[in-house]
Amino acid sequence: MNFEVTILGSGAALPTSNRNPTAQYVSCNDRHILIDCGEGTQVQLRKYHVHIQKINHILISHLHGDHFFGLVGFLSSMHLLGRDKGLTIYGPEELEQIIRLQLEVGGARLGFELNFVALNGKENRLLFEDKIIEIWTFPLSHRIPTNGFLIKEKPRDRKLNAELFEEAGLSLTLIPKLKQGIDVELDSGEVIYADEYTYPAKPSRSYGYCSDTIYDERIVAYVKHVNLLYHEATFLDDKLDRAKQTFHSTASQAASIAKQAEVGKLLLGHLSARYDNSLKHFEEASAVFKNVRVVEDGETYLI
Amino acid sequence: MNFEVTILGSGAALPTSNRNPTAQYVSCNDRHILIDCGEGTQVQLRKYHVHIQKINHILISHLHGDHFFGLVGFLSSMHLLGRDKGLTIYGPEELEQIIRLQLEVGGARLGFELNFVALNGKENRLLFEDKIIEIWTFPLSHRIPTNGFLIKEKPRDRKLNAELFEEAGLSLTLIPKLKQGIDVELDSGEVIYADEYTYPAKPSRSYGYCSDTIYDERIVAYVKHVNLLYHEATFLDDKLDRAKQTFHSTASQAASIAKQAEVGKLLLGHLSARYDNSLKHFEEASAVFKNVRVVEDGETYLI
Repeated sequence: MNFEVTILGSGAALPTSNRNPTAQYVSCNDRHILIDCGEGTQVQLRKYHVHIQKINHILISHLHGDHFFGLVGFLSSMHLLGRDKGLTIYGPEELEQIIRLQLEVGGARLGFELNFVALNGKENRLLFEDKIIEIWTFPLSHRIPTNGFLIKEKPRDRKLNAELFEEAGLSLTLIPKLKQGIDVELDSGEVIYADEYTYPAKPSRSYGYCSDTIYDERIVAYVKHVNLLYHEATFLDDKLDRAKQTFHSTASQAASIAKQAEVGKLLLGHLSARYDNSLKHFEEASAVFKNVRVVEDGETYLI
Repeated sequence: MNFEVTILGSGAALPTSNRNPTAQYVSCNDRHILIDCGEGTQVQLRKYHVHIQKINHILISHLHGDHFFGLVGFLSSMHLLGRDKGLTIYGPEELEQIIRLQLEVGGARLGFELNFVALNGKENRLLFEDKIIEIWTFPLSHRIPTNGFLIKEKPRDRKLNAELFEEAGLSLTLIPKLKQGIDVELDSGEVIYADEYTYPAKPSRSYGYCSDTIYDERIVAYVKHVNLLYHEATFLDDKLDRAKQTFHSTASQAASIAKQAEVGKLLLGHLSARYDNSLKHFEEASAVFKNVRVVEDGETYLI
């Protein structure tokens, strides 16, 4: 099953001709999630051929404009294109008022139900789960309350060794337990070992998202061992003071978080408009953590 | 002196890959005006090399998202780029709350003064004047209160025939009156005729803007004889019912307004996303009014 992240916007507060403000599209086992929604996100989604009506979770990290100014326009377009399927937005409490007000003055009534889940930027908690995935939030440290997100697959079942199982002539009723790795004792006293009749489950994959944050080692625990971590890297180390002052991170600080959290791969984004290429971000981060990419708009990363 | 209109967005509610939502930049005798500000306008301004800090009047026709969802992002960028010069926004009353709320939740305080002039979509009145230009608003007929705009040069002074004036050895104090076309009687009883010592003034130019409106002949009086008229043409005549139902116009209806108002040239825009080219809009309007263009993003029209 697929698990991938498409970068819709990799820039910071000031959009540039190459970098839209922040937005990402996550597709995970047929669950479709939008994370942040800077101005122009709906056009980016069209450009990169994402079918917008598939999205039914929108996660908004915080209320700086470059992370949500595209949201009301995106909802309006979903409506105009005939959406009737409900949608859940997870974001700061005030966001609901902002959206409702703008729809109201325009005389618009959405043709679909909009559910809000209020986040406060302080909690590490489960936001959503179904049989396949979980969405978590965790706190970041920015100038205003800001939420990180963790999207992960639930532990998967072990895979049945169907051939061996059939040869043994065992009852099909044993399968669910064996797939969960539970050994079963038959009435005869014989023990059927899960290990013997199943293959190990594929490991569950996970994606961690840290939008805007000062360097904060408390983040390490929240994203420990994720396969893929996105962490903002607005600045380079030569602007360390500016990073602290604005509650942002440098490329090497992001890499340090990735290293401590022992993640699989690190993505850097939210580059300040002052940088016209990403070479130095790559060099600076690579010195600390090897498997790193500085993202560009339109790229898709498989997990 | 220049008087020109740059089309930043020529699409309707749903942006397409070719047509951004509505916005126009008007440059008139060194006055710089933004009319409407759909999502993505700040990127369009950069793309078409408009220096955004020059803009100090923003006119918002109405509160459908495709006409203002880019405004808060635009103001934020002006601030981030160091603006300290005040700015006046003319638009529906609720717009002020929408902007203030979004700035407030983001913890932003603009580094420049923001003045609001509330419009109600019902009045024909002067909004701004200085020595050179006037900005007027007039009512349109849409689903929610909507304002049209008229930007015009004030009547210009006649131009002195300096050679003749010097030869006659007349006092320089006469010049202001002569330039205004006023004849002057000297103490000697001699009458100095303005016609004789000055050339006719260049005619004043004007631009009329009708964003979203149903066909409404009351508009004719407001834009009578303008040099350039922009009128929405969301649909073609084969969607006349849909036009009425949504309070929009067809290309031939827009052309009919232009013809009755005896304007110099007509621009059509706000084309529904259902049309993938503008040929039929051009044909339909041309049958009614000759001097017509269907605008594209990035075009500049001289007045």
